[in-house]
Amino acid sequence: MLRKIFPVLLLVLGVFAAAQHAFSQTDPLPSWNEGPAKRSITDFVKRITTQGHADFVPEEERIATFDNDGTLWAEQPVYFQVAFAFDRLKAMAADHPEWRQQQPYKAVMDGDMQALAATGEQGLLAIIAETHAGMTTEAFTADVKEWIASARHPRFDRPYTDLAYKPMIELLAYLRANGFKTFIVSGGGIEFMRPWTERVYGIPPEQVVGSSGVTEFKIGPDGKPVLEKLAKVEFIDDGSGKPVGINRFIGRRPIFAFGNSDGDQQMLEWTASGEGPRFMGIVHHTDAAREWAYDRQSPIGKLDKALDEGLASGWTIVDMKNDWRTVFAFQ
Amino acid sequence: MLRKIFPVLLLVLGVFAAAQHAFSQTDPLPSWNEGPAKRSITDFVKRITTQGHADFVPEEERIATFDNDGTLWAEQPVYFQVAFAFDRLKAMAADHPEWRQQQPYKAVMDGDMQALAATGEQGLLAIIAETHAGMTTEAFTADVKEWIASARHPRFDRPYTDLAYKPMIELLAYLRANGFKTFIVSGGGIEFMRPWTERVYGIPPEQVVGSSGVTEFKIGPDGKPVLEKLAKVEFIDDGSGKPVGINRFIGRRPIFAFGNSDGDQQMLEWTASGEGPRFMGIVHHTDAAREWAYDRQSPIGKLDKALDEGLASGWTIVDMKNDWRTVFAFQ
Repeated sequence: MLRKIFPVLLLVLGVFAAAQHAFSQTDPLPSWNEGPAKRSITDFVKRITTQGHADFVPEEERIATFDNDGTLWAEQPVYFQVAFAFDRLKAMAADHPEWRQQQPYKAVMDGDMQALAATGEQGLLAIIAETHAGMTTEAFTADVKEWIASARHPRFDRPYTDLAYKPMIELLAYLRANGFKTFIVSGGGIEFMRPWTERVYGIPPEQVVGSSGVTEFKIGPDGKPVLEKLAKVEFIDDGSGKPVGINRFIGRRPIFAFGNSDGDQQMLEWTASGEGPRFMGIVHHTDAAREWAYDRQSPIGKLDKALDEGLASGWTIVDMKNDWRTVFAFQ
Repeated sequence: MLRKIFPVLLLVLGVFAAAQHAFSQTDPLPSWNEGPAKRSITDFVKRITTQGHADFVPEEERIATFDNDGTLWAEQPVYFQVAFAFDRLKAMAADHPEWRQQQPYKAVMDGDMQALAATGEQGLLAIIAETHAGMTTEAFTADVKEWIASARHPRFDRPYTDLAYKPMIELLAYLRANGFKTFIVSGGGIEFMRPWTERVYGIPPEQVVGSSGVTEFKIGPDGKPVLEKLAKVEFIDDGSGKPVGINRFIGRRPIFAFGNSDGDQQMLEWTASGEGPRFMGIVHHTDAAREWAYDRQSPIGKLDKALDEGLASGWTIVDMKNDWRTVFAFQ
């Protein structure tokens, strides 16, 4: 009898194996065109996940860090957190009639970016103080969630989170499927990102590193403890702050990092200078039709020195126009 | 034919199920005596992991935070990081003959704790500056690893990491097996803990929150970037700093927290005041024979206000002498 069962079993197992083979042949990065950028990613992942390969990296050391603005989602015409701050300020204006005569608030109400720029760093800090401080962390999280659910991007008339890049979401999932732990390391506010990064990128709050303000532990009016957000900068996670933030929050050096601007240069250098195999990637915004085209001269997401270093060092430079089949899922 | 295969299959499956049942009946906390402390832990975990139960908590929200000194490993006769600093200072003394006449160094060399105490906070900061700063993060990590591998505890003549509590190591593993993410939230130095917490507790570097000094990104003499440790305190992760650290590093409120001293009180309060089911635990050092007995009057690990609050609020107070069958694995 067993001799008759075995062929059946083998047949069943064979079907499973064929299905698995078909599955493993499915392109994990369908929004990436075939080319050197895509190949550099898949080649790297194959090398470091192949047992016995000289470049094999144990799973616990597979740390990947990604900038957010301009790398995982768009950042034009202004950083989305700035749009959030302006919207919040406008919503608060009803309770502040004096703002109609007072800078920098008047400039925001009037949409006068030149007048706003004239108020300089002082003006910006005043706006941050009004919109990002003087409340509990829980109240701020509720504000962010409400804005993310309701605000719409001026050019695309879509929720801002729809402007996450489909190829990068695929890349994050592909890395995780290959044993990586994926982190955000962004100049953006840590508490502005955490309420939605899990849903949009699959990155949980505890894997988000960002800029932060000081918070203070207090007992609230109902006797319950709260964390109060103060109008005081604690940490700027940009430029040389990125390796500092990586060391503080993660405590391991990434083997894979992606950025898009000079603010990511030190994170990429820090990644590049570790032992063993390394992957450094830069998103180059070259697609004015589907997204935006900007680099060396842009006031937002300026990519100049990091581009030179990336070209000289053989980092992967993603040409958005040619390397990405799809930019946004809705297109 | 199939009718004959089925009974065989069922038999095979039955053996598997029986084995699985036996496995699930194995006590996951064998170093805990049966009693209210152990029961409060297993009852809580059962409730929050049972689908359909009113207290069910989705896996991504199962965050557990543990103090380190006195909660996961011992802290007597001095915090082990202080022993590390003294040992480092003695090792450096050969290059500093002037220390023989100079406080606070002389006090450390002479083992004169009274003279050391007289140098106050200034003295302590000078020792930290010598032993924890003026080097790269990588050089410091190498120092810690070397000390952890070679130094021995004065009472037990064992490596310090042998003084990790077996019942707590079991508890960490039990929580992880039930979908929890386990974090350390300690007043100790973050870079002092990370080199060994994965091996000893199964907690990776990115899940360690602690006190830290400022680090600075620099290009080293060989052209490679380094992070230099400066003699400047950045963050003290103790007392009301613990909820602040939890918010900054984890970004979610724990549903399970364990401490042992007044420095953990605010972490426990922060945990207690969230929505839904909560577990708050305190290790009470009551076992002078196997470990140490101390609480309200102790200069190290003082447990006074948090004990009163824990007793009043029905937190789980672990009586080390009666609740732990084993304290250290080597005993």
